[in-house]
Amino acid sequence: MSHFKLESEQLNELAQQLENSYFAFDRIHHIDSQCLPSQNAIHSLTRKLFALAFPGFFGRQDLTRQNIEEHLLEQLEHLGLILFEQISHCFNCQKDSPNNGMQEKVTEITKKFLATIPEIRELLASDILAAYRGDPAATDTNEVVFSYPATLAIGTYRMAHTLLKLGVPLMPRIMTEHAHSLTGIDIHPGTHIGKGFFIDHGTGVVIGETATIGENCKLYQGVTLGALSFPHDDEGQIIRGQKRHPTLQDEVVVYANATILGDITIGKGATVGGNIFLTKSVPAGCTVTGKQAELKYRYRAVTTDRPTNKDFEI
Amino acid sequence: MSHFKLESEQLNELAQQLENSYFAFDRIHHIDSQCLPSQNAIHSLTRKLFALAFPGFFGRQDLTRQNIEEHLLEQLEHLGLILFEQISHCFNCQKDSPNNGMQEKVTEITKKFLATIPEIRELLASDILAAYRGDPAATDTNEVVFSYPATLAIGTYRMAHTLLKLGVPLMPRIMTEHAHSLTGIDIHPGTHIGKGFFIDHGTGVVIGETATIGENCKLYQGVTLGALSFPHDDEGQIIRGQKRHPTLQDEVVVYANATILGDITIGKGATVGGNIFLTKSVPAGCTVTGKQAELKYRYRAVTTDRPTNKDFEI
Amino acid sequence: MSHFKLESEQLNELAQQLENSYFAFDRIHHIDSQCLPSQNAIHSLTRKLFALAFPGFFGRQDLTRQNIEEHLLEQLEHLGLILFEQISHCFNCQKDSPNNGMQEKVTEITKKFLATIPEIRELLASDILAAYRGDPAATDTNEVVFSYPATLAIGTYRMAHTLLKLGVPLMPRIMTEHAHSLTGIDIHPGTHIGKGFFIDHGTGVVIGETATIGENCKLYQGVTLGALSFPHDDEGQIIRGQKRHPTLQDEVVVYANATILGDITIGKGATVGGNIFLTKSVPAGCTVTGKQAELKYRYRAVTTDRPTNKDFEI
Repeated sequence: MSHFKLESEQLNELAQQLENSYFAFDRIHHIDSQCLPSQNAIHSLTRKLFALAFPGFFGRQDLTRQNIEEHLLEQLEHLGLILFEQISHCFNCQKDSPNNGMQEKVTEITKKFLATIPEIRELLASDILAAYRGDPAATDTNEVVFSYPATLAIGTYRMAHTLLKLGVPLMPRIMTEHAHSLTGIDIHPGTHIGKGFFIDHGTGVVIGETATIGENCKLYQGVTLGALSFPHDDEGQIIRGQKRHPTLQDEVVVYANATILGDITIGKGATVGGNIFLTKSVPAGCTVTGKQAELKYRYRAVTTDRPTNKDFEI
Repeated sequence: MSHFKLESEQLNELAQQLENSYFAFDRIHHIDSQCLPSQNAIHSLTRKLFALAFPGFFGRQDLTRQNIEEHLLEQLEHLGLILFEQISHCFNCQKDSPNNGMQEKVTEITKKFLATIPEIRELLASDILAAYRGDPAATDTNEVVFSYPATLAIGTYRMAHTLLKLGVPLMPRIMTEHAHSLTGIDIHPGTHIGKGFFIDHGTGVVIGETATIGENCKLYQGVTLGALSFPHDDEGQIIRGQKRHPTLQDEVVVYANATILGDITIGKGATVGGNIFLTKSVPAGCTVTGKQAELKYRYRAVTTDRPTNKDFEI
Repeated sequence: MSHFKLESEQLNELAQQLENSYFAFDRIHHIDSQCLPSQNAIHSLTRKLFALAFPGFFGRQDLTRQNIEEHLLEQLEHLGLILFEQISHCFNCQKDSPNNGMQEKVTEITKKFLATIPEIRELLASDILAAYRGDPAATDTNEVVFSYPATLAIGTYRMAHTLLKLGVPLMPRIMTEHAHSLTGIDIHPGTHIGKGFFIDHGTGVVIGETATIGENCKLYQGVTLGALSFPHDDEGQIIRGQKRHPTLQDEVVVYANATILGDITIGKGATVGGNIFLTKSVPAGCTVTGKQAELKYRYRAVTTDRPTNKDFEI
């Protein structure tokens, strides 16, 4: 049905303008580059790692004690190849990436990562149980695995954090950002998080690069564990890598939309109330809430029966 | 290009470690299980139900009064099969699921659900109109259907809520969580919501399991209708199923980022201002706003023309 | 395995009920319509435009100075056809769409849009650099392109805004809403935004239709640039199209979860603190913060060592 046609001359001109544009802004093209990581391949890899971590829930559904070994051998070989390839590309992508010994290094990292998956699963099992215990709306742990955004966000973070510790550039951030896109939960792969972690609902949660979270902590939607301000060097450039985010000790609960900023410590078992803005440390066992802000009520006539008084506490 | 190879011995060891890990944490595998629901199949089913609810907008585009009957017969047969299959799997997945009479029960549920779609469409039509009337940026109702997250989130909720009322486990939560992932709007399928419901922008909205929302209500982004705290039983376990979320009567408007917690009632036609934290009931027709928090202003010299005074009200 | 079967009579009845439902609510079907835009086609188009804007990062990976010209000629011809087709459908979808001269008009728009891509890339290059300079967690600009939601949200906005200025209905909103779905960042295509714009984390950001943002501005997650209230006409209908959102002059920074409402002006170089609610203009160079809300601390005995005093500032 389409009658659209670019004349050859116009087409050439458009192409020429674009080509000029490509070489004018060299940070946003990768022409004549070595192979790059593929966002799609890394997203797909993450899905396959979830199928490996939660067998039967995701990916192949007919797993039995009879076929599991064959399935694992096949999957591990396949995942090894993709990991090796994409990790290599991520190293290629760095400015000062050395070529010497790269293949051995990436082989080593890939093997170490695959060998860590059982440990990651142990942490994931503790997270799933924490979700079930922490939410009265959860009917069983199947529901948690199948339909809680925390499963996806925390699971992806745990895999990405492991890769980051093994020295892999770029890929960990592509993985956690994919989980952020799917869940609204933004956990930097550099964060340290203990076992039994749960985030309920989760949309809008931001956990910064240098935050530390102990065991059995719980956050609700919209919580920020962020930085107060960034130190700059003499040339006005931001200094990277300093500890600038909060530390939560074990068993801390932070309610919805609380904002906690700076390198402060929330002590063991402390509770931070919803919607508060916190920039000072809190001792263990302490509950911090906002002083209830004063509200203003304005009444107007309504063409309806007012509900009976017993409904209201004002 | 990849030169990665796991030696057979290493591969076997990795597989063995993973297999051990699977049987160590039995809540997060489904090996030797009966067939499980498939997240992908349920997501795809939701898309097909949208195509059925909004014919011509989604799915097949060339529908006419001539071909619509044939199209519907084909679609209903196809959707019936998928619904039956996935609902069966959801029942299988429950611990104490009875095998007796399951097939008859699921057949009955599937037929009832399909027969309810015209009623659901009547509600959806009222929601679309509410969005158009409630947002000055909307140019027509086509734009609402094609590009408002409320269409996806509320539409999915209405289908999931119907399935929940018919007794289907798990599937309703997988459906609403998929909508949450796509829109940032988290509506529990257990919520009751009247006709003409609109959520503008929506990211960060959380509506809890036992919330009740009347007719013609409107919410903005970041609104939480949540619980204050959970009652626990003697063994310290959370008690599930109690009414713990707010009731909004008809024609209530809640502005962006307001947090409303607990089993309280917001009366008919009441308005709740943005960014406030509300834990007490509000009478009909009342407008509640936060007392404007005091702001601190710090000036510094700027190397620029200050805007003319008339721009500022400070 | 499925033994589900709808009898022919039941199937016919369900189909008939649905057909009746379709014609009862005529705003939510497109039966016997001219061809409609396809959400899927427009989402896929957006991905292809990103591959064109960020060559080598997205889409085809083996681009070189040798093959780039051929690649561009092929892509431009392909994108031209899809743009022409979907823009035509978007015009068809409007109520009072004139048929006369439509094909010439859409051809003109398509060519103009393609010719604007180099200008859009110049803006995108400034945005990528702003992200790198503005975030201490960013290791290089590759990471920004591959894994920052701002890249997707702002890039999509810049393309959609260009299409809106060229008079294309519907498509710009479908594009920005797709980015909203993927990032939690909701930028209306009608907004005006200068170069070097950065949004960090971004979930929950809402930027309204008539907002204006100068050069080198930075927002954090959860910021709303919204409207205070909508004027209504004599018949109680919302008046559409008036300036009702804020203006940010150059170099303004707005911290997380601040809400700025109404047609006010935030002056050049001003800083707006996190979590504040602002409805009045702010002069250039001014820093506005909330007066720290009073917090309440409640202590309870904990069965743990309290952290040493030096950790706490209370």
